[in-house]
Order: sequence, then C-alpha cells, then structure tokens
Amino acid sequence: MPTSETWSNPLRAEHDKRLPRIAGPSGMVLFGITGDLARRKLLPAIYDLANRGLLPAGFTLVGFGRREWSKQDFEDYVLEAVRAGARTAFNEHVWARLAEGLHFVRGNFDDDAAFDRLAATLTELDSTRGTGANWAFYLSIPPESFSNVCHQLQRTGMAEGHGDSWRRVVIEKPFGHNQDSARELNEVVNAVFPEEAVFRIDHYLGKETVQNILALRFANQMFEPLLNAHYVDHVQITMAEDIGLGGRAGYYDGIGAARDVIQNHLIQLLALVAMDEPVSFSPRELQNEKVKVLRATSPITPFSETTARGQYTAGWQGSEQVVGLREEEGFDPESQTETYAAMTLGIQSRRWAGVPFYLRTGKRLGRRVTEIAIVFKEAPHQPFGALDTASLGENAMVIRVQPDEGMLMRFGSKVPGSTMEVRDVNMDFSYSEVFTEQSPEAYERLILDALLDQSSLFPTNEEVELSWAILDPILEYWAHHGSPDEYPAGTWGPRSADDMLARDGRTWRRP
Amino acid sequence: MPTSETWSNPLRAEHDKRLPRIAGPSGMVLFGITGDLARRKLLPAIYDLANRGLLPAGFTLVGFGRREWSKQDFEDYVLEAVRAGARTAFNEHVWARLAEGLHFVRGNFDDDAAFDRLAATLTELDSTRGTGANWAFYLSIPPESFSNVCHQLQRTGMAEGHGDSWRRVVIEKPFGHNQDSARELNEVVNAVFPEEAVFRIDHYLGKETVQNILALRFANQMFEPLLNAHYVDHVQITMAEDIGLGGRAGYYDGIGAARDVIQNHLIQLLALVAMDEPVSFSPRELQNEKVKVLRATSPITPFSETTARGQYTAGWQGSEQVVGLREEEGFDPESQTETYAAMTLGIQSRRWAGVPFYLRTGKRLGRRVTEIAIVFKEAPHQPFGALDTASLGENAMVIRVQPDEGMLMRFGSKVPGSTMEVRDVNMDFSYSEVFTEQSPEAYERLILDALLDQSSLFPTNEEVELSWAILDPILEYWAHHGSPDEYPAGTWGPRSADDMLARDGRTWRRP
Repeated sequence: MPTSETWSNPLRAEHDKRLPRIAGPSGMVLFGITGDLARRKLLPAIYDLANRGLLPAGFTLVGFGRREWSKQDFEDYVLEAVRAGARTAFNEHVWARLAEGLHFVRGNFDDDAAFDRLAATLTELDSTRGTGANWAFYLSIPPESFSNVCHQLQRTGMAEGHGDSWRRVVIEKPFGHNQDSARELNEVVNAVFPEEAVFRIDHYLGKETVQNILALRFANQMFEPLLNAHYVDHVQITMAEDIGLGGRAGYYDGIGAARDVIQNHLIQLLALVAMDEPVSFSPRELQNEKVKVLRATSPITPFSETTARGQYTAGWQGSEQVVGLREEEGFDPESQTETYAAMTLGIQSRRWAGVPFYLRTGKRLGRRVTEIAIVFKEAPHQPFGALDTASLGENAMVIRVQPDEGMLMRFGSKVPGSTMEVRDVNMDFSYSEVFTEQSPEAYERLILDALLDQSSLFPTNEEVELSWAILDPILEYWAHHGSPDEYPAGTWGPRSADDMLARDGRTWRRP
Repeated sequence: MPTSETWSNPLRAEHDKRLPRIAGPSGMVLFGITGDLARRKLLPAIYDLANRGLLPAGFTLVGFGRREWSKQDFEDYVLEAVRAGARTAFNEHVWARLAEGLHFVRGNFDDDAAFDRLAATLTELDSTRGTGANWAFYLSIPPESFSNVCHQLQRTGMAEGHGDSWRRVVIEKPFGHNQDSARELNEVVNAVFPEEAVFRIDHYLGKETVQNILALRFANQMFEPLLNAHYVDHVQITMAEDIGLGGRAGYYDGIGAARDVIQNHLIQLLALVAMDEPVSFSPRELQNEKVKVLRATSPITPFSETTARGQYTAGWQGSEQVVGLREEEGFDPESQTETYAAMTLGIQSRRWAGVPFYLRTGKRLGRRVTEIAIVFKEAPHQPFGALDTASLGENAMVIRVQPDEGMLMRFGSKVPGSTMEVRDVNMDFSYSEVFTEQSPEAYERLILDALLDQSSLFPTNEEVELSWAILDPILEYWAHHGSPDEYPAGTWGPRSADDMLARDGRTWRRP
C-alpha cells in the first residue's frame, strides 16, 4: 500500500531501501584471469568486498583459463594478487572463507568441452555453495573473443537464468573503435544477453568524485542555477597522465588518446556535468538523461581549428629524462597514433547552446590530473574601476576527479587596502580533509553494483554508440589530414592545442 | 575631451584615477580630543596614515578642548596614544614631522572667544603649514554639543571654504535615538554644512570584509544570480559580543542593543547584501541603491512573535565568572534597556519579497563574531533517496566580517562509500591566509576617505533617517509591551529569540 511519499514520487521508494547494500547469493566467472586487470584490480577488489562484509557467505569465484592449474595453484595465484593489491588489511578468516569458493576451469574460448565442464561446475556449485544459480560472467578479455565466449555461454545454457535466478555479463572497454564496430560488438553481446543484463565497465564512473558531480549538482540549491549558457563561458575537461606508453606501446598503436580516453571517460564526464536533472537516481532515469545530452552533443568544426593532436618526444618528466614515443619499445615509428588529443564539442540545447566544451587528454604531460573546470563569464558589468579589476580573471568552479579529490572555486575578492582593487582568490574543498571514510576503489563499487543489479554507473549500448558518433567525424578527419604535432614529454601538449583555444580567446587551465 | 571609455560610462572614469590615494593639502580639527575614541582610535589612525605616507607633508592636527595644555602637553598626549594604539611600527622621523603639525586650542563649546582663537589659528596655519584652507572638523563629541559647535563654526566663518578650498564635518554616532531626533540632528548639521560636506562615521563600513561584500557580489559572476527570493530562504545578520557593559553601563542605559548596533551597523550590512547593483561605485550611485533598498525594508509583524530582546544575567564567559547586567556598576537595576535584540525585517521588492532578514545582536554572548549568513532553500527536488539526504542541511554562504575575516560555503557532498549518501561539508576562504597585505584599520580608511572627499562608505542623512524609520515601530512596541527576557552570560541570547525563529521553522546559526 503506497504511503504518501511513494504516492508523491514512486521512483523514490526503491532508493530508500538503501541498507544493507550486501550482494545476495551469487558467484562470478572470471574470463581473462591471468590478465593484468584481473591481477591488479579485480581480484583485490573482490577480496576487499569480502573483507568489508559486502559479499554473500557462499560467494564463489570461478576462474577460466588455459593454464594447467590445480585448485591450489589458482588459490596461490589469487592470494598473491590479493596480497599485492588489496586496500583493506589482510584477514586470515576472510581469506579462508573466500578461498573455499575459488574454483578453476581449464580451457580455450573455442573449446566446447571446456565450457560444458564450466556449465557442470556451476550447476554443482549451485548445490554445494548456495550461489542460487546467480552468476555474473566477467569478460576481462579482448573484444575479439566476446563473440566466442558469448556463443559458448548461450550454447551451454549458462547465459540464461531459470526462475528467479539471474545471469549477467560484465564487459570491459574498448567497446569498438568507431560507431560501426561498437554497434557490431553490442549486437554480439545483446544477441545472448538482454541489455539489462549487460554491465559495461567505465571505471571512471566508479570514482567517488565522479559520482559526487551528481550530488553536488542535484542535492544542492546553490550550484545548479549557475550551470547554463547564461553564466558559463566554457568548460574544460582534462585527463592528463604523466606516464608514457611503456609496455603498452603495442596495444596502443592504432588506438590513440581519443579512443582510449575521450570516447569513454571524458565524454561520460561531459554527460554528467551537462545533463539535465533525472527524475530519480534510478539507472533508467539517469541513462535517459545521459543519452539525451549525448544526442545533443556534436563536435564543432572546422576540425583544422577546433581539434589538436600530438605525439610526445623525448623530454624531462620532473627530474627523470624520458624517451619519446617513437623510441618506445614495440611502437611503430611510422605510426600516426596520437598520445595527445584535444577537441571542441558543443551541446545543442537551450541550456548549453554556445558554450564550448573543450576535452583534452594526453600522456607524458606535466602531471597526472583529471578535472572538470567550469569557467564562468565575466560579470556583465563592473561597477568598479577598470584598474581595480585589471588583474581579475574569470570565475571558475573546478571539480578535481583525481588526485587530491575535491573542488575549488576561483572568484574575485577585495585586496586589503584603501582602494577597491579586486583580485582572484581560491576557495578549496578537499575530500580527504573532510571525510574520514575511505573511498571504495572504483572496481569494488562497480563489481558490487553489478552483483546488486544496480546499473546506474554503467554506460548503456546506446551511450557507447552515441559517444562514437561524436568522435567518429574527428577521427575520420585526422585519418586523412596531416599528422600529430610533436610535444616534449613533461609539457602540456602541442602548440596547436594552445592555438586551438587562443582562436576562441581562451587559454587552457594549468592544473 | 572624452575618450571612448568615458563615453560608454562617464561615471567610471573618476575611479580609474586610483593611484595615488594620498590626501591633498589639508588639516583636521578634532573636538573631543580627550575622549576614549580619539585616544584609542583616531590619533593612532592619523599616525598610521602618516606612517604609510598617505597624508600631505604639511598635515596639521588641531586639538580643541578644556584642558590647560601647552603645545608640548598636547604632543605628549598624542604621542602616548600613538605609542599605545598605532598598528604600524613607530618611526621617529614620521612622528617628528607629524608633531610639528600638532596644535592645541583651549576652550568650551559655548566660548565665543575660544572659537575666534581657533579661527585665527586656522588662518595662521594655512599660511605657515600650507594646509590650503582645507579643514575637516571631526566631532568626536556627544550629539547634544553638535548644535553649539556647528553654530560656532558658522559664526566664525570656519564652516565655509573660499574659492577652491573645502570645509567638511565628520560626525560620530549616535545619530539620534529615533527618526525624529535623527532628523533634528541632521537639520542642525545641514543648516551649517551642506550634505556633501557631512561625513557620518559607521566604522563597520570601513572594515575590509564589509567592503568585500560589494566586491564579491558585483565583481563576480557566480554569486549574484543566487542572491534573490528564488534561491534564498532567509538571511541571518549577527553581531555578537562577548563583553558586557563594563564601564559603559551609564551611557548604555536608555540606548540598548537595537539602537546601539542594529540601527547603524546591521541595517547597513543588510543594505549592502540586499541592494541592487549600483551603476558605479561612486558615492552617489552607491547611496542611491542603499536608500532604495532601505525604503523597501520594514519590520515584519506581529512584534510579539517576530522580535526578541533580553538582558544578560550572571554566568560564565569561558572560564570567567561574570556578573549580570543589573549588578554592573552604574546601571539602573530597574532599567528596561535590552542588551540583546533580535528582529525580523522584510524587503518589499521583486528580488527579496518573502525572504526574512533576521538581525540579532547582543552582549555577553557565546563569542565575539559578526557575520552574514545567506541560507538557501533546499533543492526543489532530490533525485536521491530520502535516507541518502536525511542529514543534509540547507546550503549556506557565510560572510565572516570579524574576527577571522573570510567566507564559508556549506553544501552537500557525497559521502565516500557504496551508497549515495549526501552530507554537509564546509568550504572555506580565509582573508588572512590569502592576502599578505595588511588591512587598514577602519578609522584609517574612513579618515583618509573624508580628506579625499570619497563618501562611498559614509551613510547619508537619508540612510540614517530610513534606518530609524525601520527600527522605530519595534522600539515603540517594546516600550509599551512586556520587558526584556533574561539570558545567562555566555549563552546565545534569550529563549524567546530561539522561539522567534522556531515559529518560522528555522534556527539560528551557532557561529
């Protein structure tokens, strides 16, 4: 029977069932168990979830791979990964209970017999471990293998739950390399798993500060009235890395900065900062709003003036001398793959029309930082003298995603003294200074959400395809016009990126 | 010949002549030289101005009083006050030069001969000191004496400049005890000095953070859109003192907290925070806007519910046990004079209609603080669950006038963890951490402004009379209904003040 509150907003009720957020009976099958991601992030995250008491008692993790491992070998491997990567303290009892639920099935992705064995194993575990026939399949494998694995899961009947039980698939980027291939990949996955059973990981969405964008905007009264074309001059979304390609050079060649970072992370950040308020924080409402703003988003032309790309050359990263991209082992010196990408997007909506969104990312930049800088217009009129406000910049609100998560506001304040001089000052809010609670690691949050069927933080097939639709014209243009400009390692990208903003009378923030 | 800039805004040009802000040839006659204010504030401020190089070379200070002082006695007296109260380091050369310009004239306010001597002295000083016949008369005396002194200044011709020279009068509160008496006082002064030659000191307006209210509001783009009835729930303006009446008990009896603080300081703060943007920062434009908002301001009724007043009783101020008001020496134990006053004002304008402005002041409160808290409405809709935002308060922007000058913003931020819980956090900006420049003391700033004919920070006769018009109905009501409630020293005022806000579903901020 509805209470007056559920009557006034039926969507709200589901979120009030907030505690406890502990996954129900379930297990996970992990493909790509020996991969870098599984070892460094996924296995430690699963242990941390268990240690925090957020996994069910009989939680079971099945590894699938080509190694000739006994159960003990698999346990040893997981333990080593946990010891090396877990964020919570090691607890023998937690580990012992988790280890009981570790199983390994040996096989290739095109080996029918191996998948038959996997199916039999799951059925057996359902009766011995109480996993309730609820299984998540985590595909931490190259997208070329998605088709094989999905087909096998379908053939063996593992892809489908029975009665109340559920089956879900968790997949990792890259989700294609353009809109067409993304659509094909989605078709492969959706042919086996309905979209509501597909959880696409963009680990940026698991970060506290990214989720906080929504809290800041919609839980408060004092920011949202400012976030529109009346007051905002432009927005800069930056993900800068200080590292170079290192061992990833082979993988990276042919992908580049735009596909690797902008298509997923930065366009998702754009969607979160620019979208209208959702009716509720339910996955469907949130995704609806993200899709809506992405549909309105397109790159600003001409690309010769509104985009920039580069490749790093040798230089200094702090006190360390580093080699250029073309000297990195495994990188084709003739490659046109960019390690720096910048572009100008526009949003065709009443709220944002005319406000450029500048996105940039790069490797071997000045320092590692991800931030969203909302830069406001100048006050329309200054009642003070021109000299008094000569050194006054634009107001800005900067959301720091990492590191040193927090927020900064820049505004003008009177300089002490007998004149009315106004100068920029910064006001700062640091997450770590305010909250004693530890932030869960992004993968912890996202794995738990997948087990709980909470898909708010996972991009849908539609979002992924729309992101590519935004990016494709620029990638197409780059493929046929010119080549990446050079920038020395440790700087903030090629000169052409500065020129790109200078044409609009603006400059990049030095974060 | 006007440049394009002066053409576009003629009022702006005058403010661009910002440097140097050094007073031209001039002198000051100080009445009430032996008073507390002169000794503690005015003489040190004059020295500090000289030390900062902001006074003209021949600056001359003439003391007028009843003491039988030689020039040397006067010099010794000033030196002692400077040594005790100056904020800048003592400099022998500066002092020597300032001391040359010190003169004393002995007399009573009704002594014609004394004023004739004063007039002769000024004429002589104009030729020997190069003061250019420019004189400011500082009346640091009880208002009952204004009439006598103004009359004498007129009789002797001192009130009027000749040719390019100027004469000004600087006066100190109280500017009357209600609207009628304020008007009479203004008539007395304006009969001798035209309004543009009258500088009324409200030392709060000389404070950096008070002037910064205008900079924050009008030099920036990101605050002003929020400051209206769409977003603001209410405003709290507080001046809390921790001291009791002490030696001022006799003076204070019959005046009280509302007349002593609210009529001038707090209503001026209200005007600055609520007024519309002036065309320029010129005195006339600023005063026009303040008058406009004060005209729209009136107390909310019924006063039995919208006001509160109190008298402190004995209690603890930190670790110090203090006596109650009625035990203070010189205070009539039957007196109904309030040491705590709170009231609700409303502004009848499109911008502020429906937003209560709560003003409060008191002695022997929890701690010494002056602040303006702009409290925003709750977000009109929370897409998050009710539990998630259960501990979320209202957004607020707090301008701290003293001590620890600065600004604080309170808003909701996501609590780290796997839920979407949102909790209040504070973001802080501290004046002293940001600026290395020393703030000039309020009197320094205001004395310099008076010598420079910059009247922006001085309330006009109209502002003073309007402030009383706002206050009078409440004072009238209090005079005929009930008596002050008691509150123990060291607390935050009488229970009735809390009840006053509770009726509106609100609470006072504990600063």
